[in-house]
Order: sequence, then structure tokens, then C-alpha cells
Amino acid sequence: MRKIHVIGIGAGDPDQLTLQAVKALRSTDVFFLLDKGEVKADLTQLRRDMLAAHVPEGSYRVVEARDPERDRTAGGAAYSHAVGDWRSARADIYERLIAEELGEDECGAFLVWGDPSLYDSTLGILEEVLERGAVAFAYEVVPGISSVSALVARHRTGLNRVARPVQITTGRRLAEGFPGGVDDVVVMLDAHQTFRKYADQDIDIYWGAYLGTPDEILVSGPIAEAAPRIEQLRAEARERKGWIMDTYLLRRNPEDA
Amino acid sequence: MRKIHVIGIGAGDPDQLTLQAVKALRSTDVFFLLDKGEVKADLTQLRRDMLAAHVPEGSYRVVEARDPERDRTAGGAAYSHAVGDWRSARADIYERLIAEELGEDECGAFLVWGDPSLYDSTLGILEEVLERGAVAFAYEVVPGISSVSALVARHRTGLNRVARPVQITTGRRLAEGFPGGVDDVVVMLDAHQTFRKYADQDIDIYWGAYLGTPDEILVSGPIAEAAPRIEQLRAEARERKGWIMDTYLLRRNPEDA
Repeated sequence: MRKIHVIGIGAGDPDQLTLQAVKALRSTDVFFLLDKGEVKADLTQLRRDMLAAHVPEGSYRVVEARDPERDRTAGGAAYSHAVGDWRSARADIYERLIAEELGEDECGAFLVWGDPSLYDSTLGILEEVLERGAVAFAYEVVPGISSVSALVARHRTGLNRVARPVQITTGRRLAEGFPGGVDDVVVMLDAHQTFRKYADQDIDIYWGAYLGTPDEILVSGPIAEAAPRIEQLRAEARERKGWIMDTYLLRRNPEDA
Repeated sequence: MRKIHVIGIGAGDPDQLTLQAVKALRSTDVFFLLDKGEVKADLTQLRRDMLAAHVPEGSYRVVEARDPERDRTAGGAAYSHAVGDWRSARADIYERLIAEELGEDECGAFLVWGDPSLYDSTLGILEEVLERGAVAFAYEVVPGISSVSALVARHRTGLNRVARPVQITTGRRLAEGFPGGVDDVVVMLDAHQTFRKYADQDIDIYWGAYLGTPDEILVSGPIAEAAPRIEQLRAEARERKGWIMDTYLLRRNPEDA
């Protein structure tokens, strides 16, 4: 029976690999590295460096494939639909990779930035491939340090306040309004710096980009003060590197809620 | 200047230590192990085993201290107050440990189960000690695999569904009602199996106890079906071991929301 590891490799710092992840890397025959289409050569190189650092040369193969492009223009209900189409297109690719590139008794692995449980489609795609029934395999998940954990660790703050909840959501959702019932909100996948919408409220932001890498940038403070600085740093970094991965925590003063 | 590491050591599986955590362990002179007062000898032993496995013998000291008892009977507003008093009492202890047990140029460490950012008081206590001004130190946080990440990895599911939010909250909050605006809710610190309150709704539960340890128990399914099984397994395990640490994800069918 084929076996698949879905390995969380941390948010960017190679030392965020767990010992469990290192063991999983070492028991893998074939690594599937999917190229996002966009220029993210840095990220692919970081993964190759991790393999070189932890797995004996010659003991594994690397198969690179190209991820299908996702329709990022869709909004509202069309968004979920676009994500669904994109997921099916990816399932086609994953199915072919597992069936053609992995021997019957071999172990393959997908390396996922952060934690595979948070805004990552790998698990959903593997389930879709299994449901189709064309290729059988067992799989297990190795949890990783998420960008959320990395963010608050670098800011030396908690995700939640004492006895209170925290919500993790997307920039798209935040644009619709500040989530109800919580004052601590982590925002991921926000290409539009939606936090600026809340600059008139008594909210602190803890923002970070390229967490755990030499390019890491951290900014924190009241949104009104921090927002212009984040905008500038973000634009400069994006220009310089060609891509950006950032996330942030919004912490609202409950009196202002 | 004294230095403190707050090190997330994962949810129970010693292999969930990150390489960064291992490096931090190895650069520590004094480990502060706080005993919860309750009988959690297993957990203290697990931490001692981690040190024995990763840090050369003779290169570090261990200082054990007793955590003050917390008033767990308080409810409502008194709850935050009780937590506040307890935190101050702990700050007294931490202050004394750092001032008396750690040399001026030494590095101390607190080992935190899971991730220090999630329902853990260590960072808040250290900030309180710093504010008091009696002892100065620098500190940094090493993120860890939280029980939340460990839970969903073992259940091989995501925390969030595509493009949707997830909330992390407490059993106490869940007792007040299902959080608004979300259908995926992770519940921590629930001593009362509050999920039973929602057994009449179309909600799946993904429950786990002693995650990552040899005693691990996993149950998933519709709450109505899973609840009696969880109740029984939980009672048996608690009886057998004398303590239990569990957490769960509730995933509501949006059509039922």
C-alpha cells in the first residue's frame, strides 16, 4: 500500500521543523514539490535546503509539478466555487503524481508551509483523490508550527486573552465586518491590508511578514499608528522580493467593542 | 542580563519538539519546573525525560517549585478576578525563582505544554514580573505544536473549512451558547463536556485526550453518537490516570446553523 506524509514544515524558519517532521522526511522516498506558478523560487529553495540538511543524499527523489492557476478574480459565492474548481484540478495532478511517481510500497510526502490544518488545501485534495478510487493510499499528518503561532511568538504575546476566545479568519471575511463575539482576531490570506478599515477603532495590531526568515518584518501598535508603517514596509518588501506572505492579530480594547 | 526562554514543548509527543526548541533547551542553564499541585507527576516526568534525551547531563540545573492553588469555584466575573489573583501569586514565585535561582549572566527556561500563545499564563506572568521592576531580564518565546494542531492532525482534518473562519474558545464560553458567526469551534479547558449541550444539532465532534502520548484517545462523529462514547472513555481514563487533558473541534453543518 502506498503511503503519504503530509508534513507541516513551519512558517519559514527551518528550525521550526519538529523532530517528528524530520523523522517523516527521512522515511520518505519521493517528495512532491508543487510550484505555485507565481515566482516563489525562494520557497521552493527553502524546502530543498531542508531536505539537503536532514535527509541523506541519494535516499530520496524529488518530483516537481506545476500547480494549476486559481481564478483569483472571483468574489462572493463564486469564490468558493473557484476554489472548488481549482481543488479538482489539483486533485487531477495529485492523483497522477501518486499513481505514476510512487511505487506500490513507497512513501511520498507533501511539504506544507506552516501547519497543514490551517488554510491549506492538501488534506481536502487527498480526500478527493481517495474518494475517486483510482489510486489507494494511506496518509498521515505531521502537525507544524503555523504562521499564527510564529507571529505571536515573535511578538511575545498570547493569541487569546485570559479566559477569552480568539477567531482565525481571512482578509475577505474581515472586509465584511469585524467578527462578532470576539475581540482577538487573527487574519490570514489578506492581500488588501483590510485592517486599515478599522483604523478608527481602539485596536492594536501585531503584524508580521516572512516570519522566521532573514527577511522577517514585525510591526505592532495601535492600527492608526501602525497602518502607514505596515503599508510602506509591505510595499517595499513586495517590490524587492516579488512576493509577500504576511499575517496579523487584531486585539480590540473591549471597552470600545 | 538574565535571559529567559519560554519554550513550547508540544502537546505530549516528545517528537513534537522543534529543532529550535531543542537548541533553546541546550542553551539553558536552569529549568524551572512548576508542579501544578494536583497529581500530574506524569507530566513532570515527561519534561524530565525530554531534558535527559536532548541536553547533556551535568550542563543544567532543575529547580522545581509549587504553583499556587487556583480558586476553581469562582464563576462569571469572579472567574477573571480569581485568575488575576492566581496570576499575581504566580508572579511572586516566578520573580523569586528568577532573582534567586538564576545568575546574572545565566539563561533560564520555562517549559510550556503545547504552544505558549494559547491559554497559557506564562507570558502574562513574566510581563507582570518585568513591570514590578525588581528583577530585569530579556525573554523570548519558542512556539510549539499546540494541542489544537495535534488534535486535527490526528483526526486528519483541517481546523477551518475552505475560506471560512474558526474560533478557539473555552468550555466556559461554550456553555453560554454556540459562538456566533462561525461553524467551526475548538474548545479547550472544558472540564464539563459542554459539547453534550449541542447533541441535538447537526454537529460533528473531533475529540482527543492525552494527544501524542501512549494513552491517546480519539473519537469523532456526530455529537449525538459520539457523546456517550466520549463520556465513558473519559471517565474510565480519568479514573485510571487521575487526570485528563482533552480538547475538541465542533464542526457544524451550516445548513443547520
